[in-house]
Amino acid sequence: MLIAKVIGTTVATIKDEKLLGRKLLIVRQTDERGVPSGKPFVAIDSVDAGIGDLVLTAAGSSARQTTVTKDTPVDAVIMAVIDSLEVEGEMTFVKS
Amino acid sequence: MLIAKVIGTTVATIKDEKLLGRKLLIVRQTDERGVPSGKPFVAIDSVDAGIGDLVLTAAGSSARQTTVTKDTPVDAVIMAVIDSLEVEGEMTFVKS
Amino acid sequence: MLIAKVIGTTVATIKDEKLLGRKLLIVRQTDERGVPSGKPFVAIDSVDAGIGDLVLTAAGSSARQTTVTKDTPVDAVIMAVIDSLEVEGEMTFVKS
Amino acid sequence: MLIAKVIGTTVATIKDEKLLGRKLLIVRQTDERGVPSGKPFVAIDSVDAGIGDLVLTAAGSSARQTTVTKDTPVDAVIMAVIDSLEVEGEMTFVKS
Amino acid sequence: MLIAKVIGTTVATIKDEKLLGRKLLIVRQTDERGVPSGKPFVAIDSVDAGIGDLVLTAAGSSARQTTVTKDTPVDAVIMAVIDSLEVEGEMTFVKS
Repeated sequence: MLIAKVIGTTVATIKDEKLLGRKLLIVRQTDERGVPSGKPFVAIDSVDAGIGDLVLTAAGSSARQTTVTKDTPVDAVIMAVIDSLEVEGEMTFVKS
Repeated sequence: MLIAKVIGTTVATIKDEKLLGRKLLIVRQTDERGVPSGKPFVAIDSVDAGIGDLVLTAAGSSARQTTVTKDTPVDAVIMAVIDSLEVEGEMTFVKS
Repeated sequence: MLIAKVIGTTVATIKDEKLLGRKLLIVRQTDERGVPSGKPFVAIDSVDAGIGDLVLTAAGSSARQTTVTKDTPVDAVIMAVIDSLEVEGEMTFVKS
Repeated sequence: MLIAKVIGTTVATIKDEKLLGRKLLIVRQTDERGVPSGKPFVAIDSVDAGIGDLVLTAAGSSARQTTVTKDTPVDAVIMAVIDSLEVEGEMTFVKS
Repeated sequence: MLIAKVIGTTVATIKDEKLLGRKLLIVRQTDERGVPSGKPFVAIDSVDAGIGDLVLTAAGSSARQTTVTKDTPVDAVIMAVIDSLEVEGEMTFVKS
C-alpha cells in the first residue's frame, strides 16, 4: 500500500454506472512524514476519508476487494485512515 | 485512477477480434490542472469521451470491469469524463 | 496499452511448456510518432506482427485474454498492429 | 519479489474490516546488500517479521495468496524473512 | 516479460509454507545485450535456471501460471532461459 495524502475531489457526471455515488478523491503519495511528492492520482474512498487525511491506498485488483469497489472499474482504493506512523523509534506522523 | 487527457486516435485493422468496434484513444497522464506530461498510452473508451477531454483511466485487470472491455486483452480503460477538479479549496480544472 | 515497436526476436529452448510454439518478440515502447525509448521487453505475439511494426501491447493479467495466451505465464501480449496514429489533428504515424 | 527492509509501523483505527488485527509494516526496497532507497510503502506481515528485518515482499494480486491476506484489499505482503543473500559468489547480506 | 540476468540466490527459512522447496533467485533486468541495470529483484525459478543465465521473467498474476507457482504469494517467475536475442538483424546475445 502507498502512504498518500488526500488533497482534493473529482466531479464526473459521465462515468461507468458502477461508480454512481462513489467518492473519487485526489491523492498524492507521501513519504513517512506525510510530505507529498509526485503526480496526483484518483482513488475511490471506502473509509469516509477527508481532505488533508493521510491514508493508505491499495492498487490494482486489490482495489476491488472492498464492498464499495467490488466488480468496479477502479484501480485504487483508500482502505485505511492513518493515525500515526513510527519509523526507527521516532513518531514521524501523528494525525492532528 | 490516473487523470489523463485524450489527445488522439489509433487505427488498427489487425487486432484481437474482441477489440472489433472498440475506440482506441491515445491519452497522456496530467497533473491536477490537466497539464499532460510523460509518454502517451492507449486506452479503450467506455464513456464516449472525445479529443481534448480530461478523463479518468483505470489500469490492469480493473480495465476489464466495464461492459465493453469484459474478457478483452486491454489494460487501460477510460471510465469517467472529468467535469471539474478541486484541490485544497481551489478549482484547478473546469471542463469548458 | 503501450505503443511499441517490434525490434527483434527471442530464442528460448528451455521454457514453460505452455510457451511451446509461441513467438516471443522484443519490443520497445515508443511515443506517438513511433520513436522508441527505454528498455526493451518481450511480448507474445497474437496477431502475426513483424519486425519493424508499430503495435499495441497489453500487460499483466490482460495479456492472458487472447486465445494464444490463456492460462500462460506471460505478462505482455501484442494484440494489435497499428495502421496509423493521429494526435491533435496531425497524422503522427502512418504504416509504410 | 522485492528485497525490502522493515523500518516502521502504521497505526490506523479506521480501516477496511478485513484488516482488523493485521500488522501494517512500513518497508523500503533495498539493493542486494540491504541498503534502502526510494519511497517507503506499507505491507501486511504474514511471517511475523520485525523492525530491521530484511524481507521479501510480493505485490498485486499475489499479495492476497497468503492465509492472512485472502480476499483482503491489500497490494503488498511480506511473505519471507531473508537469512542471507549471495551475489556472484559473495555473501552480500547475512542476518545478524 | 523482462529480459533479466540471474545474479544470485536468497536463503529464507521463515517464509510462506507454499514457498517450501522453491528456488528464490536474485535477478536484474538487462538490455537486449544482456547488460544489467537497475535494482535487483527476486523471482521463483520454474525452469532450472542457473547463475549467469539470461532469462525471461513474468510478473504479477502471470507469475502464478506455472505448476510450481500456482496459488503461491509470488509476483515474479523465471519461465524461460534465453538462448539468443536478435535485434534488427544483429545477434545481440548468444548463450555461451
